[in-house]
Amino acid sequence: MTVHRVTFNHRAEPVTVKSGTLITEAAKLAGIDIHQPCGGQGRCGRCIVQVTEGKVRLRSSLRLSAEDLSLGYCLACQAVIEGDISVLIPEQERIERRLVTDRTAVEVEPPPTYAPNQQTLKRYFLTLEPPDYEDQTDDLSRLLTQLRVDLGFEEVEIPITLLKKIGTVLREGNWRVTIFLDVVPCRNGVPHVRMVEIFPEHCEDDSPIWGAAIDIGTTTVTLWLVDLWTGVIHAQVAEYNAQIRRGEDVISRIIYADKDGGLQELQELVVGTINQLVEVACKRVKHYEVKPNDILKVTVAANTTMMHLFLGVPPSYIRLAPFIPTFSQAPILRAQEIGLKINPHAIVDCLPGVASYVGADITAGVLSAGMDDTDKLTLFLDVGTNGEMVLGSKEWLVTCACSAGPAFEGAGVRDGMRATDGAIEEVWINSETYEPDYRVIGGGKPRGICGSGLISLLAEMFMTGVIDKAGNLNANLPTPRIREGEHGMEYVVAWGSETQHGRDIVVTRVDIDNLLRAKAAIYAGFLVLAQSVGVPLEETEQVLIGGSFGKYLNIEKSIQIGLLPDLPWEKFHFLGNTAVKGAYYALLTHESRERIREIAAKMTYIELSADNAFYEAFMSAMFLPHTEILRFPSVMEAIRSLRTPQ
Amino acid sequence: MTVHRVTFNHRAEPVTVKSGTLITEAAKLAGIDIHQPCGGQGRCGRCIVQVTEGKVRLRSSLRLSAEDLSLGYCLACQAVIEGDISVLIPEQERIERRLVTDRTAVEVEPPPTYAPNQQTLKRYFLTLEPPDYEDQTDDLSRLLTQLRVDLGFEEVEIPITLLKKIGTVLREGNWRVTIFLDVVPCRNGVPHVRMVEIFPEHCEDDSPIWGAAIDIGTTTVTLWLVDLWTGVIHAQVAEYNAQIRRGEDVISRIIYADKDGGLQELQELVVGTINQLVEVACKRVKHYEVKPNDILKVTVAANTTMMHLFLGVPPSYIRLAPFIPTFSQAPILRAQEIGLKINPHAIVDCLPGVASYVGADITAGVLSAGMDDTDKLTLFLDVGTNGEMVLGSKEWLVTCACSAGPAFEGAGVRDGMRATDGAIEEVWINSETYEPDYRVIGGGKPRGICGSGLISLLAEMFMTGVIDKAGNLNANLPTPRIREGEHGMEYVVAWGSETQHGRDIVVTRVDIDNLLRAKAAIYAGFLVLAQSVGVPLEETEQVLIGGSFGKYLNIEKSIQIGLLPDLPWEKFHFLGNTAVKGAYYALLTHESRERIREIAAKMTYIELSADNAFYEAFMSAMFLPHTEILRFPSVMEAIRSLRTPQ
Repeated sequence: MTVHRVTFNHRAEPVTVKSGTLITEAAKLAGIDIHQPCGGQGRCGRCIVQVTEGKVRLRSSLRLSAEDLSLGYCLACQAVIEGDISVLIPEQERIERRLVTDRTAVEVEPPPTYAPNQQTLKRYFLTLEPPDYEDQTDDLSRLLTQLRVDLGFEEVEIPITLLKKIGTVLREGNWRVTIFLDVVPCRNGVPHVRMVEIFPEHCEDDSPIWGAAIDIGTTTVTLWLVDLWTGVIHAQVAEYNAQIRRGEDVISRIIYADKDGGLQELQELVVGTINQLVEVACKRVKHYEVKPNDILKVTVAANTTMMHLFLGVPPSYIRLAPFIPTFSQAPILRAQEIGLKINPHAIVDCLPGVASYVGADITAGVLSAGMDDTDKLTLFLDVGTNGEMVLGSKEWLVTCACSAGPAFEGAGVRDGMRATDGAIEEVWINSETYEPDYRVIGGGKPRGICGSGLISLLAEMFMTGVIDKAGNLNANLPTPRIREGEHGMEYVVAWGSETQHGRDIVVTRVDIDNLLRAKAAIYAGFLVLAQSVGVPLEETEQVLIGGSFGKYLNIEKSIQIGLLPDLPWEKFHFLGNTAVKGAYYALLTHESRERIREIAAKMTYIELSADNAFYEAFMSAMFLPHTEILRFPSVMEAIRSLRTPQ
Repeated sequence: MTVHRVTFNHRAEPVTVKSGTLITEAAKLAGIDIHQPCGGQGRCGRCIVQVTEGKVRLRSSLRLSAEDLSLGYCLACQAVIEGDISVLIPEQERIERRLVTDRTAVEVEPPPTYAPNQQTLKRYFLTLEPPDYEDQTDDLSRLLTQLRVDLGFEEVEIPITLLKKIGTVLREGNWRVTIFLDVVPCRNGVPHVRMVEIFPEHCEDDSPIWGAAIDIGTTTVTLWLVDLWTGVIHAQVAEYNAQIRRGEDVISRIIYADKDGGLQELQELVVGTINQLVEVACKRVKHYEVKPNDILKVTVAANTTMMHLFLGVPPSYIRLAPFIPTFSQAPILRAQEIGLKINPHAIVDCLPGVASYVGADITAGVLSAGMDDTDKLTLFLDVGTNGEMVLGSKEWLVTCACSAGPAFEGAGVRDGMRATDGAIEEVWINSETYEPDYRVIGGGKPRGICGSGLISLLAEMFMTGVIDKAGNLNANLPTPRIREGEHGMEYVVAWGSETQHGRDIVVTRVDIDNLLRAKAAIYAGFLVLAQSVGVPLEETEQVLIGGSFGKYLNIEKSIQIGLLPDLPWEKFHFLGNTAVKGAYYALLTHESRERIREIAAKMTYIELSADNAFYEAFMSAMFLPHTEILRFPSVMEAIRSLRTPQ
């Protein structure tokens, strides 16, 4: 076996690898985490490194110019080590991690009708007869008999880890105990009763009972810490899903999960993120001292891939035709079964999804948006890395998912980035000089453009004629900002002198195509849903937008590029993270939990990849705002007024 | 903190310990296992060591003569280290381990009426419709729907670890699978269905389905490997319970379990023993290649303490008045929950016990002895470290347990030992010369006396007048074998010249008292049971003796010392290991399993420690054969004929 030595960043200690190893793998050995948003497929170009000594064999040289190559630049995920080498990893490509908490804290109230008796997690105070020489009943039977006599529960599920402590708890409490049971009504009338915790003595009557609602997004994990007794939310926290370092979209994660050890690593990463959030949330609570061990129940919303990874179930078949997930409704679990560091016996209720690309985040979102309870024809939209949408009302629901790609999250675009400090989030172009103006998140100098900035930029370029309806840049305009770049025509949004890194921030023809594809996919989804039920899209009475995507979205510009249908602006409502809100409702009441089950059961899912109507709608939507310009009367009107000499 | 260096057996590397550490603890640090049958209480005297350099402080010097002490001998469990010392551990005191397999292999047939359809662990062959773009049902729902449609099962419990594999299994088998379900009928008519395993493709129709019946004894663990399809036992193996090194009786184990880390250690030890037995049993099977992972179900019999330790449940309250166990019936578990290295999803069914000292070994024993199905008034007896007994018939059952102590297992007696090679198992004394003759297990020279040897010896000494009915040695007899020893009078069974170790093998007055107490406790138990139901003990129609105790027992001599009631010998039947046999029956049919539940439910338990009648019966039984000599007419007759000049 031939081995080679690989030195990273001039370190004294090289790592030794087998011939044929990739630089990304060698870096992992050296304890260096190289950012691979596309999951190591050579697509995203984010793992660029410089080989300063020795040579590598490149599987692919996509995204690299001849000059880059001559300087030793290569994509680490495509570079096969065949001799001793030295590698430099540019500082800015290291994984960035940042709490996004403050951006997601929102005011949410429990449903106005909420009362503790709607909570399935019940607290009971029991006083048992102590045993003696005449009554030799064992502790467990004594407890179960009391539960039968006092509460009518015939069968109670008790985990072995709880059994281990009941002997001591009963005696410490002198046969007076506080017991927590999750009592779930069942269709046959006999409730399913699970013992969750038992404490010596009778605790305070109205002290909090802690639970958590969790939304596992591909990018961000959100957790709300809730008092199940009052329904009050005591902390709201969010953080990047630590899986990001193994791929930025669900497909990259699935590919990574298929690698040796990949699934376990991804599960540990996301569970680690949740465990961190639990710690942070507990510390944020005011007036009470809460420990992770106090959390007795969680509900989890997530897209289908994230749910599989959370439970360590291989998601492989989600990306293979005909795209079937292993489960839509997971069994009820206990926290200790998946490594959650809350109370080990805590109930983990993973909410049900519908299909591989319409998960529990959508069913929970439909609930919290109230869509299953309205007479109005409603379009519900949750755009994250994928675009999921639901059309309907309390009568019926149809749903589909479009692989919009990660362009709106800033990936797959040359100067794209996530919506954090330094991201251009809004652009304005002067329609005479073609000079742009922009707003940067956090103020300061820009270092890239985030999703809302890209939508804004695309709309402005179109409305000002910098690009035509097919997305071609107009090279005849009198501005140095439109120029021939390495990968074709491009528009300079910020000169190097204005940016953090000293390089020009541009949008290229390739980027524009990616954005067109993303917006076309979403709009085509709307059309297919409407056509499937024979309802004109324009009859939509309200558009509810969930997810972080909506938060900074400019409706006007989204309509201008044909991403959203041309409806009066007042029909659009931004609801924030509808998924975690739905999980919160399900955490509080069995009625909400049942409604999510019913939503999942009644949603008709349309798989677009096999749908010719979708393909046609997609092709028609690849223009700005659309081939059928009549669908966008307000945009026609705006263009007319813009281009009419003032 | 003062620390000291302790050198063991002249090793180069001393261990360093805190002042106040016991020698037993220091030895553990040095990787040396000192045998502590009494659990470190200074009772049994088996952990004797010699301190050759330095001094220790003795908590107790029981069982040591002044001469022993002057030579540095001490009990390692009582010796507190307060300075640097050197210690010698006599070779013969190291833990002995030995397979006892061959002694326990027995011929057992499944019940004659057994047929595979009585087995709750069912094998089904399913052929599913593959999914497509029209039918997007997830894998789990598809499987559960088929189980509902084909078999009528509304709810199926599936562990997360099985969920992880179903996606791949369904596709590997091209939607044809073999599935194993444990289908347990319930009283409400709806069976409790647990998924145990799923394999791609339809496997052979009548290939074996592997299961195991296990009896966890305080001393010995027994495992039978069974084909659940045919009921045939393919291997029978047994081994010492590895917990022995932490105490020889249940009380010592409970005390050890209360120490820091003790419970977990004891659980790991017994699970380790079972895992070893599984390996050995699999290799023993002829004609089939069996792997531990093929075992899909186990039933477990054990005394109550062993069952608690097996599941890692603290047994503390078993030894504290009023002697209440934490559970009598454990929930059904999966193998992976307790570290059993068989199929991780395998069903682990721990059979129900009755009380702290009447466990599942007895309920299973009553079943396999057929006692719950007979019209005959039956006395069932299982003497191990404790003596458990049941009186009754199919109409009623009463039970109690006597702490006979470990004398009949060779512990608590100066030259006592377990029934292994070198043990004297039968003794005869010449009633004129008072010279003994004896038989040694394995032939060869003796090194001690086992339980059956002690019973035999006691009976011979009594019948020949070496001791009187109170157990006093007759110093007036013309034999050098009766002499004053270190601890009072003693009788020499074997001179040093005949023994393995060159020391005399003796039975002392103290030993005789221990044996008297043991036999008195058991006989008193019989009497109390009979009195509790108002039936004369002599009306017993059969005596069924389970456990290893009965195997080499001499009925005649047991009656002579008043251990067994004076009934015609043909009424006594030795049944071998009734506990594992009962577990085997419960493994095969739900009807047997239900009968054990009913046995446990209908047995009336009498707690003797609070029973004055027991105390009186015990005191009366402290004589040979008994204070009320009329209870033992055959013994009276034998003595008369012996002492009548020939």
